[in-house]
Amino acid sequence: MKALTYHGPGHRFWEDVPDPEICHPADAVVRVDATTICGTDLHILKGDVPEVEPGRVLGHEAVGTVERVGSAVLGRRPGDRVLISCITACGRCASCRTGTYGQCRGGGWTLGHTIDGTQADYVRVPFADTSTHLVPADVADEAAVMLADILPTAYEVGVLSARVAPGDTVVVVGAGPIGLAAIRTARLYSPSHIVAVDLAPARLEAAKRFGADIVVSADDDPLTVVAELTGGAGADAAIEAVGAADSFELCTRMVRPGGHVANIGVHGRPATLHLEELWSRDLTITTGLVDTSSTPTLLRMLATGRLDAERFVTHRFGLAEMEAAYDVFSRPADTGALKVVLFR
Amino acid sequence: MKALTYHGPGHRFWEDVPDPEICHPADAVVRVDATTICGTDLHILKGDVPEVEPGRVLGHEAVGTVERVGSAVLGRRPGDRVLISCITACGRCASCRTGTYGQCRGGGWTLGHTIDGTQADYVRVPFADTSTHLVPADVADEAAVMLADILPTAYEVGVLSARVAPGDTVVVVGAGPIGLAAIRTARLYSPSHIVAVDLAPARLEAAKRFGADIVVSADDDPLTVVAELTGGAGADAAIEAVGAADSFELCTRMVRPGGHVANIGVHGRPATLHLEELWSRDLTITTGLVDTSSTPTLLRMLATGRLDAERFVTHRFGLAEMEAAYDVFSRPADTGALKVVLFR
Amino acid sequence: MKALTYHGPGHRFWEDVPDPEICHPADAVVRVDATTICGTDLHILKGDVPEVEPGRVLGHEAVGTVERVGSAVLGRRPGDRVLISCITACGRCASCRTGTYGQCRGGGWTLGHTIDGTQADYVRVPFADTSTHLVPADVADEAAVMLADILPTAYEVGVLSARVAPGDTVVVVGAGPIGLAAIRTARLYSPSHIVAVDLAPARLEAAKRFGADIVVSADDDPLTVVAELTGGAGADAAIEAVGAADSFELCTRMVRPGGHVANIGVHGRPATLHLEELWSRDLTITTGLVDTSSTPTLLRMLATGRLDAERFVTHRFGLAEMEAAYDVFSRPADTGALKVVLFR
Amino acid sequence: MKALTYHGPGHRFWEDVPDPEICHPADAVVRVDATTICGTDLHILKGDVPEVEPGRVLGHEAVGTVERVGSAVLGRRPGDRVLISCITACGRCASCRTGTYGQCRGGGWTLGHTIDGTQADYVRVPFADTSTHLVPADVADEAAVMLADILPTAYEVGVLSARVAPGDTVVVVGAGPIGLAAIRTARLYSPSHIVAVDLAPARLEAAKRFGADIVVSADDDPLTVVAELTGGAGADAAIEAVGAADSFELCTRMVRPGGHVANIGVHGRPATLHLEELWSRDLTITTGLVDTSSTPTLLRMLATGRLDAERFVTHRFGLAEMEAAYDVFSRPADTGALKVVLFR
Repeated sequence: MKALTYHGPGHRFWEDVPDPEICHPADAVVRVDATTICGTDLHILKGDVPEVEPGRVLGHEAVGTVERVGSAVLGRRPGDRVLISCITACGRCASCRTGTYGQCRGGGWTLGHTIDGTQADYVRVPFADTSTHLVPADVADEAAVMLADILPTAYEVGVLSARVAPGDTVVVVGAGPIGLAAIRTARLYSPSHIVAVDLAPARLEAAKRFGADIVVSADDDPLTVVAELTGGAGADAAIEAVGAADSFELCTRMVRPGGHVANIGVHGRPATLHLEELWSRDLTITTGLVDTSSTPTLLRMLATGRLDAERFVTHRFGLAEMEAAYDVFSRPADTGALKVVLFR
Repeated sequence: MKALTYHGPGHRFWEDVPDPEICHPADAVVRVDATTICGTDLHILKGDVPEVEPGRVLGHEAVGTVERVGSAVLGRRPGDRVLISCITACGRCASCRTGTYGQCRGGGWTLGHTIDGTQADYVRVPFADTSTHLVPADVADEAAVMLADILPTAYEVGVLSARVAPGDTVVVVGAGPIGLAAIRTARLYSPSHIVAVDLAPARLEAAKRFGADIVVSADDDPLTVVAELTGGAGADAAIEAVGAADSFELCTRMVRPGGHVANIGVHGRPATLHLEELWSRDLTITTGLVDTSSTPTLLRMLATGRLDAERFVTHRFGLAEMEAAYDVFSRPADTGALKVVLFR
Repeated sequence: MKALTYHGPGHRFWEDVPDPEICHPADAVVRVDATTICGTDLHILKGDVPEVEPGRVLGHEAVGTVERVGSAVLGRRPGDRVLISCITACGRCASCRTGTYGQCRGGGWTLGHTIDGTQADYVRVPFADTSTHLVPADVADEAAVMLADILPTAYEVGVLSARVAPGDTVVVVGAGPIGLAAIRTARLYSPSHIVAVDLAPARLEAAKRFGADIVVSADDDPLTVVAELTGGAGADAAIEAVGAADSFELCTRMVRPGGHVANIGVHGRPATLHLEELWSRDLTITTGLVDTSSTPTLLRMLATGRLDAERFVTHRFGLAEMEAAYDVFSRPADTGALKVVLFR
Repeated sequence: MKALTYHGPGHRFWEDVPDPEICHPADAVVRVDATTICGTDLHILKGDVPEVEPGRVLGHEAVGTVERVGSAVLGRRPGDRVLISCITACGRCASCRTGTYGQCRGGGWTLGHTIDGTQADYVRVPFADTSTHLVPADVADEAAVMLADILPTAYEVGVLSARVAPGDTVVVVGAGPIGLAAIRTARLYSPSHIVAVDLAPARLEAAKRFGADIVVSADDDPLTVVAELTGGAGADAAIEAVGAADSFELCTRMVRPGGHVANIGVHGRPATLHLEELWSRDLTITTGLVDTSSTPTLLRMLATGRLDAERFVTHRFGLAEMEAAYDVFSRPADTGALKVVLFR
């Protein structure tokens, strides 16, 4: 089959690789019907994720059709249409038993990372019963594939961790795909205000379309905007969706006493925590990896028309156009790309 | 009357001051039957709390007898024996309406800070209905006065914020009075292990007496001790009770994925938050000022013998021995002082 | 002044009564700018609420302008525009300290019940700081007055107690004003489905307008409708808004294992709880009186356009047309009345 | 091998049956080292559980040693010492994904019910990875086997559902083995009072030994006792551990406004819910089947000496003495039996 492989920093190929096989009784092999590219894939290609070995098939998001299942798979059969989650969950370790699949000891983020991934004609999915989700008949592939990573990540690590509630003032710092997904899923809780902060005017425009009612450039004065909006109190929740120390520190200064700061961003360096100011402010700060425990709920919302996931898709390609898709996705400022989807 | 007054860094006097009066219909004037000294009082005397003005009567903890009440006080009468909380709560602002009295806009920590305090023969207590608690008949003054600050602070900001639960491994960094109170109140939830970390052998000995089953010097390797105890996972909860960046950072490294870090310590400088490691570890970090919302519960536990608050009291004085009490309390390494109580 | 008074079952008068006075330092006297009639007022007039004494001024909902305040009132001044909550809260008892104002020992539902109420030119409001809310400038009287009772009741006792969450299937049994308010506030949490059950076709039509996507007559087979909608599992939440044993029992049969039944209805007789079926179904059943703890949040949502409370108002009158308003409100099947508002 | 089999109401045999085999790749076959008898087994023998077919091996609680595992079992190996939970969990259905294993669609209570159970030399355990727990080396068989059913049932369905908290007044109605386990695990949360209610003096004596500080005969006036203890307010939590309508109704009358009633009892008939009194009392009532989600925590508490599970064991037998053990267990009033354990 064909697959997108990593061969060291800066080197990727759409090349022939062996077809995947069932290796363990809980595995499934799935034909990829739709996949997408994640910002993390770009990081891998820069060499920022050293545990990815040369030859690895990339990709951790897909919708596909089950081809074959191992003897221990009970809930998936050939022909089933499934969402392949970015998190592979064994379903039996201490982490999985409490629903924190992202910390699964034998799984977690493995696809396109420590095992071959989804940017291919076929993919082997370990623990198929607990790592895939049946896709309702009336949900489109391109909507469902947005639930492989971006939407549960923003919803769980951002919106749920920040305990967004009706009437809240919510700030989302960073209006890339994850930030927009945080804006969109925060909206599910009917906050009074969603304030989006970013540097790029195009991203702030996108933030408005996805549900922010107030947008402010990071170069202007987001602190003052939020203070004025809240009578000086500060926001109820601030969601960091950049992965930068400055953004995180801004979040900690923008929330009211008793507020929540939820970090979604992937950070490469430490941040400063101003405990000399924050020690008495009843702050809650959370970090987290997505568990995809919300995926069944989000799928139900897709099926009932309560979530418009397909609006994240800006570009569509055939699987064989993988190289072109990477090119478009890696230059969002030029192409306006949010998410690109590649179809069989 | 006599009172302990602050007159600039390093200057305190036990001197004559005017008797307090009812200034607002919600006030009470209370005769002080027992009071104590807090580490914060020592900070004030060093000049670390600049908003305290010369002439201020110090002290924010007391048990006393109501002398007079304003016309709007409904639930307290002359003769009532009351606990005066370190937090004065108006009971009507947005913070008070959600039980976060520590953030009360017209109250909060005021006694011995922005208004005259409890280290005196008499004290005016604003919002007496919501800033004092009736003391059950069979609870001793010296036990009840421990509930003015130290025990609710450790319980709310430490144990409750850290969500300590049966079976947990809990680490408390810092075994001064607040850390010991955290150990004692963590024990209410039947954790599997309470690990105390401190530098002073005497404090680690005290930690054992208050309920820690494992003690480790901060100079040894607390990280390894906790890792071994938890099969490499890390603690469920870590409570910072020092107020130092190093201690805080140690806490963030000692908890398991999904664990809680609760900061009680008062910090004068920022800490480093290693988001490059912590972003994916499902961490929850909390800070907070005590609300004293747990005081009624803790009083009930005193009355039913479920809490042995009096064991924090190491030295007893008469009110007029205020200077001697300060001397003993300010040299704990020499005197072994935890809490000193001054009685009428 | 003029007021609507109760003089025994079936007897009400719009008559001259003495103006109210400040009786306690925490009181305010408020000029009524808008008031409304509640189903409870009709129950009182039938004689169903025996603790209401002859001569009592009815009404527990209003928006008005503060005329005078007692000496202990800190947060309200003459000229302030305020919402008078159906729940009078002392702000200092054990119930108020935990935000359960509905159970306030010296307050709770008192207006138009045990003290004179709001269907008058003026009303004395006890504990004005904690029993009224400042109304934002851009919120209309007729919208704000819907937050005196109906909306917080439906939201707190129904939606919040039932823990409605995004993606849920929610059933509301009873589509009178309270049921419609439950439908509208459940919508704030973006459930997948809201199913309304009632007998009256007009009410089911109203349910659709307020946000139910599925309506079913109680005479048809709501159980089957819900079962089909949820793949046989049952609803996540069922809200009883009738006050009848049959409705309550229907709710307990319609929820899935792990589901929530929230009772809002006022019941006059016991219900049967089928523990022989329910003991193993992980059910949570809640009852409750409104606390109006959500009122500040709901007011903020009004001010930011997130809640369209005024749509409950079907008829408008002058205060002096009180008798006509009662007539319209007491015959909803003929008049289509949901809520009537009387303006100064 | 030998096993205790059911052959219709009143007929049980300790007889030869075929050895169990691995039927599915997720199965394990476990040698039984210790098992026990549950009140439910007596109900089966009376014919009260009609889905149990003749020939069925009874028993749903055991500690044993893994003999063989299927090809999909990852976390258990021959020789492992395991606790066999009363709840068999597939680990992959919607219920298991939220930790509600008791409602597992392909599992739940199956052992000794719909498949052969543990009162035998060997037992086949489906979904061995998620239906068994590794037993720490220093935990005795007879302590661990108490965690197969009785302790997690009382803890989860009683104590956790009732949200028992430090300082609470907790009432446990019924002081049989489950009620005693509720008393013992409620104690983990340091309530102020645990009141036990039962008819049998011997059970009330046992309640004292297990941690109740107040015991009262159901024939006396438990309502008055609880009212006096709580200043008229009522208990914070009431736990029903009988399975009778009267007991349940007593629980609903004994709790304070805002209190919790947690039903553990297995009921054969409906109860009356006095909504005409309870509608306004902010009550939360829960029912539930055990999930055994707390078993890892309870095992950790056994290993660290925080739980003394072995004290439930009153009688010990060899496996071949199964008939004698049933005889002793079925006449507790005569024999004083709480739990009997049968050892290999």
